[in-house]
Order: sequence, then C-alpha cells, then structure tokens
Amino acid sequence: MADTAKAPRRPRAETPRGFRDYFGAEVTERKAMLDRIAEVYHRYGFDPLETSAVETVESLGKFLPDVDRPNEGVFAWQEDDTGSGADWLALRYDLTAPLARVAAQYRNDLPTPYRRYAMGPVWRNEKPGPGRFRQFYQCDADTVGSASVAADAEICAMLADALEAVGIERGDYVVKVNNRKVLNGVMEVAGVLDPLDPERFSAERGIVLRAIDKLDRLGVEGVRALLGEGRKDESGDFTKGAGLSGEQADVIMQFVGANAAVDDALLAASRSVNAHSKNLSLDLRTASWLNDSNFSFLPRSKTDGDLRNDFTVSYLRNLVAESSIGKEGVGELEVISDLLRAQGYESDRISIDPSVVRGLGYYTGPVFEAELTFEILDEKGRKRQFGSVAGGGRYDDLVKRFTGQTVPGTGVSIGVDRLLAALRAKGRAGEAAVGPVVVTVMDRDRMADYMSMVGALRQADIDPNDPSKGKIRAELYLGNPKNFGNQLKYADKRNSPVAVIQGADEAARGVVILKDLILGAKIAAGASLEEWKSRPAQVEVPLADLVAATRAMLA
Amino acid sequence: MADTAKAPRRPRAETPRGFRDYFGAEVTERKAMLDRIAEVYHRYGFDPLETSAVETVESLGKFLPDVDRPNEGVFAWQEDDTGSGADWLALRYDLTAPLARVAAQYRNDLPTPYRRYAMGPVWRNEKPGPGRFRQFYQCDADTVGSASVAADAEICAMLADALEAVGIERGDYVVKVNNRKVLNGVMEVAGVLDPLDPERFSAERGIVLRAIDKLDRLGVEGVRALLGEGRKDESGDFTKGAGLSGEQADVIMQFVGANAAVDDALLAASRSVNAHSKNLSLDLRTASWLNDSNFSFLPRSKTDGDLRNDFTVSYLRNLVAESSIGKEGVGELEVISDLLRAQGYESDRISIDPSVVRGLGYYTGPVFEAELTFEILDEKGRKRQFGSVAGGGRYDDLVKRFTGQTVPGTGVSIGVDRLLAALRAKGRAGEAAVGPVVVTVMDRDRMADYMSMVGALRQADIDPNDPSKGKIRAELYLGNPKNFGNQLKYADKRNSPVAVIQGADEAARGVVILKDLILGAKIAAGASLEEWKSRPAQVEVPLADLVAATRAMLA
Repeated sequence: MADTAKAPRRPRAETPRGFRDYFGAEVTERKAMLDRIAEVYHRYGFDPLETSAVETVESLGKFLPDVDRPNEGVFAWQEDDTGSGADWLALRYDLTAPLARVAAQYRNDLPTPYRRYAMGPVWRNEKPGPGRFRQFYQCDADTVGSASVAADAEICAMLADALEAVGIERGDYVVKVNNRKVLNGVMEVAGVLDPLDPERFSAERGIVLRAIDKLDRLGVEGVRALLGEGRKDESGDFTKGAGLSGEQADVIMQFVGANAAVDDALLAASRSVNAHSKNLSLDLRTASWLNDSNFSFLPRSKTDGDLRNDFTVSYLRNLVAESSIGKEGVGELEVISDLLRAQGYESDRISIDPSVVRGLGYYTGPVFEAELTFEILDEKGRKRQFGSVAGGGRYDDLVKRFTGQTVPGTGVSIGVDRLLAALRAKGRAGEAAVGPVVVTVMDRDRMADYMSMVGALRQADIDPNDPSKGKIRAELYLGNPKNFGNQLKYADKRNSPVAVIQGADEAARGVVILKDLILGAKIAAGASLEEWKSRPAQVEVPLADLVAATRAMLA
Repeated sequence: MADTAKAPRRPRAETPRGFRDYFGAEVTERKAMLDRIAEVYHRYGFDPLETSAVETVESLGKFLPDVDRPNEGVFAWQEDDTGSGADWLALRYDLTAPLARVAAQYRNDLPTPYRRYAMGPVWRNEKPGPGRFRQFYQCDADTVGSASVAADAEICAMLADALEAVGIERGDYVVKVNNRKVLNGVMEVAGVLDPLDPERFSAERGIVLRAIDKLDRLGVEGVRALLGEGRKDESGDFTKGAGLSGEQADVIMQFVGANAAVDDALLAASRSVNAHSKNLSLDLRTASWLNDSNFSFLPRSKTDGDLRNDFTVSYLRNLVAESSIGKEGVGELEVISDLLRAQGYESDRISIDPSVVRGLGYYTGPVFEAELTFEILDEKGRKRQFGSVAGGGRYDDLVKRFTGQTVPGTGVSIGVDRLLAALRAKGRAGEAAVGPVVVTVMDRDRMADYMSMVGALRQADIDPNDPSKGKIRAELYLGNPKNFGNQLKYADKRNSPVAVIQGADEAARGVVILKDLILGAKIAAGASLEEWKSRPAQVEVPLADLVAATRAMLA
C-alpha cells in the first residue's frame, strides 16, 4: 500500500536562527547597567522615548518597497487587509530612524531642542554568525534641533559620566572627538576635495580614508604607499593607491601623524618647563619648543596641566590653514574642548583626537568615540585594548526627508553588549548572583508549615538596620519531595546560600535545621574528611529563630 | 505633453496603524511599576527570562504555515534565504508560548521546578481600535514542572504582594480563586458532563458557561431562562437556551448563587455568635445555622475571623458531592486556602470565589483573577468598580507539543496598561513629574560659564543629607538664545522648576538670578497684580551660592 500519511510531526523547540534567550543574571546585569545610564541621561535633562518596534518601511526610509519583499536588511511584511496598496511594515533596525519619524510627527508638540534617550532591542535581517545576533540592544541619546556645538560637548560629557556611572573608572576610558569638517579641510589642502565640485576626486578620497583607517595594521609606511602608487601585501597581492603626489601625501601623512606629533610636543613642553622652573604653569606663547611651526597657532594661555587638547587643536589649525571648512571644524573642536574644560573634563577623559575616522563619512560635524583603554586577553590569549564601546556625532538632516526642513541633531549610541562584556571583564557586573534560600519539604502533609516559614523569610529585611538592602529571597521546594537528595541538588542548581530543613523529629522539638550551602560547597571542594567533620556547615535553631539565624548565615 | 513624472513624494511621519509611542513619564511610570513587581517576583525565587521577540511560527504553534501568509492574528514573514522550505517567523503574541519553547529547549539545564518571570512587549495582528493597540506589554510569572497546588497558592500570594508593592492598598483588591475541576463537577452533577464521554453535551455546556458569565448583566432570572428554553431580550430577539430540566438548572443555579449563599451564611453566623457570646471564636460544627444543609460538610474548627473561604469550600463540596472530579477540585481549593492562611493571607485578600468563570475553558485546575474593588468613573461619568487587572491559572500541557511529555505549569499575567491606569486613577503613579533646572543663555559668548553652572548643579545632591535622593537634574538651553522669552517658554514646556539667569550685569557683579517657575506659575494663575508684585518668584544670589539656593528652591 502507498499509504504515506505521516505521524503528526512535533514542532522543534528552537530559538530562530540568529536569535537568543537571556536568563537570570544576563537579564538583571544588563538592566542594572541600563538603569545607571538612564539615571545619568535623565540628570542631563534627557527624556525617555519608547517608540513601537514596528515602523512603516516608508518611514524607516533606507529600504523602499520597490521589490516584492523589501526586506533587504530588515524584517518586513505587508499589511494584509487592504490589498496591493497596503503598507509594508518592518521591525526597526536602529533607534535613530524612529527618532527622525517622531521628531517630524510631533514637531509642534516637542520642546526645541528635544533631548531624548531610548533603550531597547533593534532587529537586523542579516546572516547570523558567532556572536552576531539578529536582535540586540541599543542605548541612544540625541539632541534634536540644536545647531550649537555646546550640544556636542554635552553629549561627550554625558557619555563620560555614563561610563563612570556603570563602573568604568577614570583612566580606563577616553572619549575621543574628531570633526568631519577637519578631514574635509585636510582633503582640500591635499587637493583631493574641490569645494566647488564636491563629487570630484571622490574615488581618491575613498582610498585615502580607507588607508587612514588601516594605520594600526599597516603602519606609517604602508599608509603612505597606499596614498601614492599602491602597495603589495605579504601575499603578493597589489592594492592600487590614490595616486597622490609626494606633496599631497605629505599633507595626509601630517594628519595621520597628528597624535604622534602632539605626543612629541607635550614631551618637549614638559622638558622645557622642567628645565626653566618647577612651576608647571606655562605660557604657551613663549615656550621655546613653539618654534616648531606646527604649533604656532596656539592662541592664548590656558589653564594648567592639560595641554593635549590645545596642542592638537593648534596642530590641526596649522594643517588646514588654507581651508575655510577645515578652520571652521578646528574652531568647533576648540570650543568643545573649552566648554568641557569649564565643567572639569580634561583630555584624560575627553580628548580631541584626529585618529577617529570611523563614521566620518556619515556624520556632518563633530564625531565621538568612547574607547576603553584597559587590556583584556583576546580569544587567542593575546593582550589587546578593549576598544570602542560607544560612538556618535552630528548629523544635520534628520527630519528633512519627512518635512523638507533641515533639523540639526547630534547624539551617541552605546554598544550595550560590548559595554556589558567590558564590565564583566572588569568584574563590575553580576557579583556572583546568589540564589534564594530554599525551604525543603520533608513531610508533604506539613506544606502549610513550610509555606509559613518561607513567608516569614520573605517578609524579613536582609539587614534590619538597613532596609534598603531589601528582603530575604526565599522559595519553597515545589518538586516531588520524595527524594531528599534531589531537593539538595535543586538548591545547588539554584545557587542557594541556605537550605532550611524540618523533619518530623525537628517539628516535634520545635526546631529547624539551616544548612550553609556556600560554606558547605567550599568545604566539600577542598577539605579533608577531618575538616569536613569538624566544621559541619549546618546549625539547629528554635523555629522562632529561623529569620535571625538565616540572616546570620547570609551575612 | 503627457509628462506625468511626479515630484519625489515625502514619506509620511506616522506611527503605523495600531501602534503608539510613549514619551517621558509614560515610560518611567511603567518602568517604576514593573521594577517593583520584579522585586517581588525575585524575592519569591523567580528568575527573569527574556526571550527574543521573534519565534518560528511552528514553535508559536497556534498559527500554522498552511496558507501563503499565515499571519492570522500574528505578524509573520518567511525567511528569504532558503526558498520555499524557509522558516516562517513571527512576533510573539504572548509570553507563554515562548516559555513553552524555552521549557522544552532547555529542559535538561533548567531547574525543576522552573520559576520564571518575563516582562516585555507582545504583538497582535488585530484590527486596531480606540485604546486597542497591536503592541502592548505583558508581565508574567509562571512555575513550570510542579503539580503541587502549593505552586498555585504561591502565585496567588505573590500576586497580592505585587499589587501592594506597586501601591494598591489592602482592601482595594482581591485575588479570586476558582477551579476548573469544580465547574466540571457541577456540570457532571447537573447531567451535562459524562466522564466516560467528555465530548457529549459540549454544546449544552457552552450555553451554560456563557449564561453563567452573563450573571452580572442578566441577573438570576435571565441566567435561569438561558439554562432552560431560552430568553427573549429587550429587542425581541430570542436566544436559545441549554434545554436543561428544572432539577438540572437548579444545580447550576446553586453554583451561580454560591457567593450570595455564603454571604447569607456569614451574616447568620455572626448573628448566632453575637447572640450566644461576645467571643468571636466559633466552633463551626456546633453553630446552629449549620442546619442549613449547604454547609453540613464544614470539616473542623479553624482559626478565627476568616470564615468566608471555609464557607465557600463547604458549600461547593456539598454541591459536587456526587462528582469525584468536583470533590478533587474543592479539595484543591481548600488546600490553597489553608496554605495561604498559614502565610497570613485571609479571604479579604485572596478569596475562593466560584464567580470566576472567565478562562475556565482554557485552564485545567485552579484559576485566579485579581480585581480592584475601588470605584472609578467610566467614560460616561458613572461609577463602576475598576475590575480585573490580572489573571491566570494552571495548565498542564505546556511543553507536550514539543516533547510529548506532559509538564504541569501554573502562572499569572498582569495587565500592565490596566494596572498602570489603576495607579494613575489612585494618584499612585507619576507624582507630578518635575522637569530639569534650566540654565538660560543671555550671552552666547559665555557658553563655557553657563556650562560650568549646569555641570555644578548636576554634580550636586538634591539633599546633601540624603544622597539616595539623587543629584540635581539640570540642562543648558541649547536653542537659539536670541529671544529670551522663548527660553522661558521652553523652560515652561519642560516643566522646569527653576530657571537660572545670568546676563552681563550679573556676571560683572558675580551673581546669578534664580526664577522659581513653579511658584511663579501659581502666582500667575491666581494672583492679583499686587500679590504678583509683592512675591516676585525670583532671587539674586552670589554665584558661589548657586547650588545651595537651587536646592532651597527645589525643596
């Protein structure tokens, strides 16, 4: 017989490809971190905004319904009620596109400027890979409707405060600030940007940008080769260069070498100061090393002890002296540095840094990147700096697509998963999540007694002198109580600190046994039989002392 | 010419139909409420679980990919990479289906029982309507893998604690508990359920259930008519009844009348007690009103003062005496009541209540519903009880679809939006969200000075004696500073309590002006010109006193 009727197939219990679940401490650690960040954002006057996860594809913008299924990079579907004219909907792929929609939709109701923060999942319809998920958290703060460079400075200060609030110590991070306009100025001076014909030389600029971005990997010589004729790598493959003349390449290389030049100048300055006096105060205009022409634009005496940003500004101003857009950009960086200094943020925390190139193509003015400077071991056990955990900058056409009106904006996005990984690497997240006290069940006819114990524990403060520490976390064993060993295994799996035990004998005597599971585990792990016996990790106390004795064991 | 080329159309800046955005306090109030609920769940030993928003349609279950677009009630789409065999994905429509998937997927790793809570948005592809959204929050707690009725009791206690934790006072809520098995017992006794042929009489049972659910609207007579031949409503339309005999209908009506009978019995009991002695202690077996046969099963003397649950259990036990499933159900209710009493939860908080019918078709054992008992005014200005804010119960085939193995579960879901509405109605949410202090800009060349002021405010505790109150919320005005009136309008829109002002004159004298905007608004709203002048809501203080004076104004 050809009866091919199948048995009903059971569905697979599987997270969809590229998605994941978060359990217990994975949820609470992220939440604790985001709560602390939100507290900082709130203090800076930013208001929370929670848009829906779903937007029209039209409003998301980047992806247009000109194909049958427009889910290039997004998860999209068509509304099924109104035929072919029905809207296409999609899950948001970031928190900026919804902000643009909100800024346009509510433009008559929102304050101007509008400061908002947003935290939540976004979705990308991409090929999943190791550590690459199709749903992940973003945490953004933006100021919409302010052209003032003070808005950019504020974002940088807030980012530094947020990093410290979650537990990244001063010295372990630096917020680097660059400016798209400075790069444009450098390109102009190098002759690969014509303000009257911005499209010209765009291929060359692309090669230059990519070369600059490879400084870490290729070194100065490698970058220089890519600016000229090109470069042959170890495998013998040849990468065509931008074809710049030696003079043109010099300009770019001066930009690439800015940080190193500033380092040298700072060293010279400190030597000069030390040579002349013990007084660290310094008039920049008279210092001898200022004969170096790169720093001849240093404008005036500033406060002590934090010259790096001033030096960098001066160096960049000299470099782009022939470009008006470049000078504008340097001026903005100087104002940002001054505004931040007025609030106490020096270059150890927020540093003007021309090496920040990533994202320069997207933004229109200042760009920021927060880097963690401490070292971790990578997958191969090599030391490396932790690296970037946040980035942002100024963009000036947020709502123009909707209203035709240009509205300036600036903002930052924190990489939630990366920052959380950093906190874990520093031991600042999830300090050994302790499970609940477990009240075991010796006698299933006395469930009411056990329930009363667990209730009493839960109503009790962990520390009666400090109610802010919360109440005791406790649960009753609700599995099959027959096998007592299973109950202790369960308590172990729950990472429980204390097991409460009361059999018929204890009940008759009005006592209860408390087993210190953390101490017990320590003893079991490393103790001889004698030690194990001499320190039985359990006590018997009167039932009336249940709460007090549990508190003592938790302390 | 037939040139019909259109100008590029701008996208509409609109939230998709049925979706909404949440601003400011709408976000923080909900978050504060969920944080308090999570604290209670955590204390009960429940662990957080956050699944992805996206599931395979196969795993969600209810909706199968047997049509081209299987989005009946869900938002679904097909993976676009592997042709016709590609998975259909969908947004979760509740938090229970993902729990079922997780319980099956991780069954070897999770503790048994597994207590988890989950909070987050869910999505329904339904026709949106007023107050009906296609994305909304759910807040669930479930215990998977315990058949013990103690798990149900625990959920009820936790629900009561959670309601109190968010600010619903004792007396303003009641958690009602019923049991599907009791209803089955009543049906059996009434002759509309045959344990040997459960499908028989299912049409009649449907009519009976719907009739019971209409008690509030139709009254006793209306329900009784629907149990028999049927009923003509005011419009003259006839609804066919279940066709029960008088005796059969009597059984159902005894069930429907359970609460009223218990009320009467409680009244009689209190009269009897008062007549015999001032002592409220009462031996139920000897009380004279127990001649009423409905209460003849009252088993033993219990603690004082809370007889309602005992009376209800006794009444129901009498009613279903001829049904074994019914007796089992009553027994479960009695155990729940006893376990809760052992923890101090009496019927004023958690009440055995046969009137809870909603959801009985879905659950397999105990069912719970939390009702808020205070009155609010409805849209038409009429008083009505606030009503249900949470519901749940026991279901026993959570993971069977995946593994073939029956795993018992019980849980509750809080209606987040409804509970938040209740808190607002009681004035327990969002106590007048105060905006940030606004530092205004009189002189745009002195932005660094203003930035330094706003920085100093933000670093200062609101109350130096109590750092737990947090730091001062403050922002710098970042719009165009030209028109000072606009700055004050902005501060007003931000609900700012204090505006800080320093023009060139004040700067020269080293002072700053603080404007009390809340007092100012009060004065402006209701004051005569004389009053207005006599209480100018602003002070001038030395710059060094900025923080102290702002603190004083905020206090």
